[in-house]
Amino acid sequence: MQEKTVTGFSKLSKLGKIRWVAENFFSSPRQVVEELKSFWHEDEDQQRVLDAFSENTLSNFYLPYGVAPNFVINGRVYTVPMVIEESSVVAAASSAAKFWMSRGGFHAQVLSTKKLGQVHFSWEGDIQLLRDRFKELEQRLRRDAAPITANMEKRGGGILDIELLDMSLLEPNYHQLKVSFETCDSMGANFINSVLEEFGNSLQLFVEEHIDEDKPLEIIMAILSNFTPECLVRAWVECPVEELGNVCEGMEPAIFAEKFAKAVRIARIDPYRATTHNKGIFNGIDAVVLATGNDFRAIEAGGHTYAARDGQYRSLSSCEIKNDIFKFWIDIPLALGTVGGLTKLHPIARRSLELLGSPSATELMEVIAVTGLAQNFAAVRSLVTTGIQKGHMKMHLKNILNHLGATVGEMEDVIEHFEDRVVSFKAVREYLDLLRSGGLTYTAK
Amino acid sequence: MQEKTVTGFSKLSKLGKIRWVAENFFSSPRQVVEELKSFWHEDEDQQRVLDAFSENTLSNFYLPYGVAPNFVINGRVYTVPMVIEESSVVAAASSAAKFWMSRGGFHAQVLSTKKLGQVHFSWEGDIQLLRDRFKELEQRLRRDAAPITANMEKRGGGILDIELLDMSLLEPNYHQLKVSFETCDSMGANFINSVLEEFGNSLQLFVEEHIDEDKPLEIIMAILSNFTPECLVRAWVECPVEELGNVCEGMEPAIFAEKFAKAVRIARIDPYRATTHNKGIFNGIDAVVLATGNDFRAIEAGGHTYAARDGQYRSLSSCEIKNDIFKFWIDIPLALGTVGGLTKLHPIARRSLELLGSPSATELMEVIAVTGLAQNFAAVRSLVTTGIQKGHMKMHLKNILNHLGATVGEMEDVIEHFEDRVVSFKAVREYLDLLRSGGLTYTAK
Repeated sequence: MQEKTVTGFSKLSKLGKIRWVAENFFSSPRQVVEELKSFWHEDEDQQRVLDAFSENTLSNFYLPYGVAPNFVINGRVYTVPMVIEESSVVAAASSAAKFWMSRGGFHAQVLSTKKLGQVHFSWEGDIQLLRDRFKELEQRLRRDAAPITANMEKRGGGILDIELLDMSLLEPNYHQLKVSFETCDSMGANFINSVLEEFGNSLQLFVEEHIDEDKPLEIIMAILSNFTPECLVRAWVECPVEELGNVCEGMEPAIFAEKFAKAVRIARIDPYRATTHNKGIFNGIDAVVLATGNDFRAIEAGGHTYAARDGQYRSLSSCEIKNDIFKFWIDIPLALGTVGGLTKLHPIARRSLELLGSPSATELMEVIAVTGLAQNFAAVRSLVTTGIQKGHMKMHLKNILNHLGATVGEMEDVIEHFEDRVVSFKAVREYLDLLRSGGLTYTAK
Repeated sequence: MQEKTVTGFSKLSKLGKIRWVAENFFSSPRQVVEELKSFWHEDEDQQRVLDAFSENTLSNFYLPYGVAPNFVINGRVYTVPMVIEESSVVAAASSAAKFWMSRGGFHAQVLSTKKLGQVHFSWEGDIQLLRDRFKELEQRLRRDAAPITANMEKRGGGILDIELLDMSLLEPNYHQLKVSFETCDSMGANFINSVLEEFGNSLQLFVEEHIDEDKPLEIIMAILSNFTPECLVRAWVECPVEELGNVCEGMEPAIFAEKFAKAVRIARIDPYRATTHNKGIFNGIDAVVLATGNDFRAIEAGGHTYAARDGQYRSLSSCEIKNDIFKFWIDIPLALGTVGGLTKLHPIARRSLELLGSPSATELMEVIAVTGLAQNFAAVRSLVTTGIQKGHMKMHLKNILNHLGATVGEMEDVIEHFEDRVVSFKAVREYLDLLRSGGLTYTAK
């Protein structure tokens, strides 16, 4: 066992790290070293920037960078950049975009942009004493944090409210400062965390100096919350039911609309369905979040908690048919940035923002909520009409054939063969082997 | 507006797509074309495989591919591959791995591997009629799906239970077939969806033939669920409290342990904190999910729904101190594959699995749950000791300096300057400009 542990690994050069990994865990170390190197960017400076995003970096993991054109959002046309390894997602977004382009496009509106953070603390003292002097405390907190907030205030943001919450019924002596922020075009994690840590220091001093020096207050932790129900955007589409004709796959538009609405209602009442329904929404959302250098774990966490906010995990989207108008919408919290973080540091993320017309954070919230809604529209549409397997299996088959280096002629043959058969890597390889060995004759024209 | 919409985009060649995007949305189209091309893999066949994962692919989005060594899990040593763009995550995983290596390592156990899917249907008939003949129906479903399940059964998997659920109290005439599956080493999405779509067909026919041909049953949709509370793994660490010395940053081990446990309890009782607590867990989990070619949206959705299963969104991890033993654990649903999907098709994902010793899906569940727990340990440790900002801001500063092409000498100077100042891109650039213009003399030794 000892031979595969290591000390001082992070101090090794990149090539030193690769070699250690290759020699200790692979049967063909040389090949692995060359392969990992083949994924480096040719420009060393560029590669250095990428390597520094994380630690112990050996190479780059490639994810497809694609685009979905024809997104009309609030009357403006966007080509949306998407980073996603799953097949059908970009195609689905593109087809939904095109469909709604001629039906008024997508609409989106940011409902609020408040971000949140918390200073969690323990204090054995009487919380009423702190409440009595809260105005004073608040002034002190704001004053001490002023060097950190000065720049954000110049940009129109800063600290909004500071609340003192008594949580001691849930955990002895536990209380919170719950703080809301406006962080303008930045996601604001670093800003918020810096302010909150400063708040923690100030709070501790304030209590010792002004309230009770014998009962010191313990800061448990100070950090932003990724649950931002008030950093919220709504996106929607609507059209007369009869205009839904093109997507119904032979179904009557009115029947399609009802079935679609029923599928969305099911995702509201059943958590098992809601999870997958929302997963599809995040297929679209995360693809743009990644492409623009934002943090998809933060977006996922906030969105799913929001989906569970009333005590049951539910669909993030809703559908309504009223007076023969089909309306489909989503409300979703999205704490995003278009400055700061990796937005300008990642070379392709920078280009993604340029492609979107260098949007503000609120505009990006709108674009991303729309992409999630488009994805959801396409997924539910497939589910209630043809089912999703046909398209999926075809994409999967093509992936396998590409991997096996199939020629165009072989591809046609294999696709025809698997039209009504179950696709698996093994089955495809075996059939292709048979084909190549001459055990079969080409059936393709 | 019309000039930026397009028809037939997906039919354009890759270069044709890039040119259309570059010319319509960028001020320097030529540069953009060259830049996107510079991220292509040099081997055209390799690039073709990557392009085919998705649609409208223009280039590759690079994410850092790093490793965290020294993970001892159930007595075996792993170097864990991680794909993550956020700084400090790989470093945190590595440090937690090393810490626990000398304290018995990590332990993990798969509790169950059941996956789920649903056939959602509407039927105006009396559900009791269907229930009376359920045995017969079940035989028919299994028989009709036999060509799809044959291979999976050979591998030891297949369809487990089929249940008929009456959901008509929640939505008129709405019912479900809820089906559980064992999919062995594959994540099983394609298999499950294929079976369920077949079930939908069979169910419809069965009702028409045997129950009531005048009340046709409507299949609303048939699809897997990403909420898999019975595809569950537990990971844990434990050691005597006094052995926690190394990570306490000067705190007494017993006080550190109590504070750590309190921070975890807070993440159980407060959804605002729980969201960020779990977000940190997914920082670790998603990094390995991505590195091994699995689908992080599926993992995120299932994990967060699980966190909300009792009606309040809560921490996925728990901590307990009993008889001076510190124990910290996580229970998390992880529906993963080590065959199928992109696991063997993505060149780096394939290497990741080799690096992990070609694990089974259950072994991968254990490794990934452990990585999430390690991440959570490191994050909570930082939060309750030094706070997270110090490390974060230093990483961020280095990223900015790399981007601005700072020399080693400049770096030292700038890092010292920003030791007690707020880091922002603008502030760093301005200070560096000043330094470079000779407006300041080097202060670094």
